[in-house]
Amino acid sequence: MKIVFIGAGNLATHLSLALQQMGEQIVQVYSRTKTSASELAALLSVPYTTSTDKIIADADVYFYTVSDDALESLVQLPFATNAIHVHTAGSVSMDIFQGKKKNFGVFYPLQTFSKAKQVNFNKIPLFIEASSPEVETELFRLAHVVSEQVYRTNSEQRLKLHVSAVFACNFVNHMYQIASEMVKSADLPFEVLKPLILETAEKVMHLSPEQAQTGPAKRNDQGVINKHLEVLVELPALKQLYQDLSDMILNQYLHQS
Amino acid sequence: MKIVFIGAGNLATHLSLALQQMGEQIVQVYSRTKTSASELAALLSVPYTTSTDKIIADADVYFYTVSDDALESLVQLPFATNAIHVHTAGSVSMDIFQGKKKNFGVFYPLQTFSKAKQVNFNKIPLFIEASSPEVETELFRLAHVVSEQVYRTNSEQRLKLHVSAVFACNFVNHMYQIASEMVKSADLPFEVLKPLILETAEKVMHLSPEQAQTGPAKRNDQGVINKHLEVLVELPALKQLYQDLSDMILNQYLHQS
Repeated sequence: MKIVFIGAGNLATHLSLALQQMGEQIVQVYSRTKTSASELAALLSVPYTTSTDKIIADADVYFYTVSDDALESLVQLPFATNAIHVHTAGSVSMDIFQGKKKNFGVFYPLQTFSKAKQVNFNKIPLFIEASSPEVETELFRLAHVVSEQVYRTNSEQRLKLHVSAVFACNFVNHMYQIASEMVKSADLPFEVLKPLILETAEKVMHLSPEQAQTGPAKRNDQGVINKHLEVLVELPALKQLYQDLSDMILNQYLHQS
Repeated sequence: MKIVFIGAGNLATHLSLALQQMGEQIVQVYSRTKTSASELAALLSVPYTTSTDKIIADADVYFYTVSDDALESLVQLPFATNAIHVHTAGSVSMDIFQGKKKNFGVFYPLQTFSKAKQVNFNKIPLFIEASSPEVETELFRLAHVVSEQVYRTNSEQRLKLHVSAVFACNFVNHMYQIASEMVKSADLPFEVLKPLILETAEKVMHLSPEQAQTGPAKRNDQGVINKHLEVLVELPALKQLYQDLSDMILNQYLHQS
């Protein structure tokens, strides 16, 4: 099986290297950005191109690891119509390939990728959707090459997964950002928050988020909540956010105590 | 040094056991709730009382590990006025003891405690405030008995720390809760989110939250954001929260790209 990567960003880098390390044959990297294309190609020791005309036509699988907008235009290109074409986007329906390619699917990893941080692909859940049982078999095979956790999901489930990931990752990271600025305003280093951040994540490996919750909103401790709102009085957006999230937590636990 | 614990909740349990394991002498547990008092006393093999009249008067240190409201009334009790009286609350000023006790301070651990989950006290940052250099010396000694990370902070800094902790822990856990409900609505188990949750926390051990951010809001990807808002259309509070947090992230990165 010969594989082409269309896109050379964070996900392309981590996924192509993981596949190659496990013996899969990556034959080319395409990116419209020369730096990205050449950097990833060098890591993989394969040729690259920045021209869609020069994408190899006889590969078996094409991975599209590009932005949703770029995907929209790249699927229009009439090449390798019998190969398997796969995108990796959380919020794009598999049907984007419909009428343009014969064999296609989705290969969605639920993880946050930054170039500066290594990840163990083996522990990343992969969500597969395919245009036919034959394509599904091939995508499951490739998925199991790099990961222990592989699920079959349709486009609607995947979209909900992507929304979940925004809450569990991007919005969580923004909470870290807010907390970080707050400790700096108290002349303390971000370091003091690290054990709390790790423990909060590790807790939900063993307890449900509902069981793991602590804090003034859960206890309906209005005295503490009011003191905290006063600290935030000159940061109206944060004050509102604190109030809204406290109300949500409070409502969740209100009928339980 | 003889230590009395006033309060027998999650923090009292973890802290008193950690102190005792390191050779400190816990002599009594007080709680108004008999079950709590007797359970912790049994773990420590010490006597307990549920009556404030029977709190031992000749101990050296009294730890108040109770709710802010309970603390307010307990500090009024005129016992052991020459001993060191210490509360463990994030949002209560040290001055609550002023005029009632001679030697006092604060011993605030930045961590989330649940009875169902063990914690390694050694890695928990402790924040100390004291009414005199002598009390400070004693509280630093006790703090170093159980933890590697000990800081001196005043009541204002500690209040900001507590607000930070609400964002980095309680609100983060609420994001996990929302994500958990969302994956369940897609007929998938909470398990699929665990690697993402851990990686999101681990990333900020090495990168700043600002460097670690990913996702549609950071990229200003309105196409994805709009699809996600549509998924949330029947959950107006979550839709509003998604919009507000996306706007905050977007504004943070807007001037950087």
